[in-house]
Amino acid sequence: VNEFELIARFFTRPSRERAGVGDDCALIDAGDATLAITTDMLLAGRHFLPEADPAAVGHKALAVNLSDLAAAGARPRCFFLALALPAADAAWLDAFSRGLLALADRFGCELIGGDTTRAPPPGPLTICITAIGDVPREAVRTRGGALAGDDLWVSGEVGDAALALAAQAGEAALPAAHLAAVRRRLDWPQPRVELGVRLRGLASAAIDVSDGLLGDVGHLVERSGVGALIDWDAVPRSPALRTQPVGRQQDCALAGGDDYELAFTAPPAARAAVLQAAAGCRKPVAVTRIGTMTTTRELVVLDASGAKVETTRHPYDHFAR
Amino acid sequence: VNEFELIARFFTRPSRERAGVGDDCALIDAGDATLAITTDMLLAGRHFLPEADPAAVGHKALAVNLSDLAAAGARPRCFFLALALPAADAAWLDAFSRGLLALADRFGCELIGGDTTRAPPPGPLTICITAIGDVPREAVRTRGGALAGDDLWVSGEVGDAALALAAQAGEAALPAAHLAAVRRRLDWPQPRVELGVRLRGLASAAIDVSDGLLGDVGHLVERSGVGALIDWDAVPRSPALRTQPVGRQQDCALAGGDDYELAFTAPPAARAAVLQAAAGCRKPVAVTRIGTMTTTRELVVLDASGAKVETTRHPYDHFAR
Repeated sequence: VNEFELIARFFTRPSRERAGVGDDCALIDAGDATLAITTDMLLAGRHFLPEADPAAVGHKALAVNLSDLAAAGARPRCFFLALALPAADAAWLDAFSRGLLALADRFGCELIGGDTTRAPPPGPLTICITAIGDVPREAVRTRGGALAGDDLWVSGEVGDAALALAAQAGEAALPAAHLAAVRRRLDWPQPRVELGVRLRGLASAAIDVSDGLLGDVGHLVERSGVGALIDWDAVPRSPALRTQPVGRQQDCALAGGDDYELAFTAPPAARAAVLQAAAGCRKPVAVTRIGTMTTTRELVVLDASGAKVETTRHPYDHFAR
Repeated sequence: VNEFELIARFFTRPSRERAGVGDDCALIDAGDATLAITTDMLLAGRHFLPEADPAAVGHKALAVNLSDLAAAGARPRCFFLALALPAADAAWLDAFSRGLLALADRFGCELIGGDTTRAPPPGPLTICITAIGDVPREAVRTRGGALAGDDLWVSGEVGDAALALAAQAGEAALPAAHLAAVRRRLDWPQPRVELGVRLRGLASAAIDVSDGLLGDVGHLVERSGVGALIDWDAVPRSPALRTQPVGRQQDCALAGGDDYELAFTAPPAARAAVLQAAAGCRKPVAVTRIGTMTTTRELVVLDASGAKVETTRHPYDHFAR
């Protein structure tokens, strides 16, 4: 029984709201506005090391939620913070709040409520954030809108966070500059908030890449009732990842997780507009066409020789590994 | 440094929204509607025993959030559930989801999103719920609206949950019928949702009694910039609590916590309307006038002889005890 099956078995029910359990965000209509809402829980020892820089932990805890809002095309508005702390550690909280609130300020996303409690020793320190964004009703975007024939795109580069974890575990050796670059991707992910907003009306479906590209595109494929054909050679990878053996490149880029890029679909007619939207961000974002949506309901990755690419790692599943 | 000081020090900032960190709910305007939003985190070993009935845990996890919505006068609409589980225990999840969703169904409050993760062994099992309710903009109610001269009211009876904990700890002896009654109050709290809605336009301020009557009225007093004079003899107590020594009665009723009743203020002219609102609930709720709001900015409890009542327990503070 994996995480997704557990959620589906006990908690999925018919819904009045626009999008429910299983999407990046829930969408609720309030008056003449639509709100996108998402929640993520992070645990010390699972999502971050207990000795990790608390400013980075604060940044990432909010970033993963803003990334979900970006997928929905929502502009961040406010968030709630629940904390379970093994101790009242003022130095940790000071740095944590600085990392958290710096990112919040960058996107005008206000902390407006929360809950603080003491975790019974030895913890773990647990952070749960619920973030809320606005999206015009006519621009609402889910995982479910992809059509056969749409292009499949991804922002930035994928696989670096997984490579950083592999290096940390001693499985991959990297020169210092590459190591610093991939660790930065792991510890300080940059949610694609502006791109998400600029893709309103262009992208037919979107998801943020948090569980690994294949796993997340798999969710999009399933919800949209289509398939996808991905061209491995087109999948954007950093210089650091490209130095690795091809098997590791494929494991990291396709099944790695923690990328917080956007995977999205758009009709071929929108290609120029998509490139323009990405280039027009205050800090321009690269977007790359990596495949096509198909009618087959299968998710297939082919390399340049036309052979199927298989990864040795499963898409991220908390209860399977 | 206590919980409230930690929150205030690192996370309180000027806010654009209607009510922010420190109120039961945050209030955000969306189009022509106002949403009340609240979040609570519950940990095994702290808020419930690991061996507790999972159906009761599911019920209470949502009930404490609905109680916050009730204070704001909001009608529950939907909620988000984040879970950190030490193991994928299908039997536990099955019972938990039944307790949770039965209460959700009772109030038409839909589960629309969440996050599930595995807690590193040995846990603790952690539940974080964020609940969202609707309230008409003109009926928005906070902790901050009490005026000197207003009556202070409380719903139901207070202190039973604390008495159940004292009995569990072997500090208080109770006959079986009383023990069952107070344990029911501890394990299956009934959020005053309907009363909260019916007090729209009548109550000038409200708070739910989760941290202990004095602690919570203290928050209300502080936010409203007034004081309160409470008549100990008027504080409503159950038959079970009334069998206890007066010192324990005062500790439980004034500083006990976990009651999930509403403490609220209303002008004396609204007395008949308040009683009618409470009596008109589908399941009528008792409401009792226990004091008066004053200009002194002090919170004082007097007994029948006019002597000040002091409790030996501090209002609930996670980091102090």
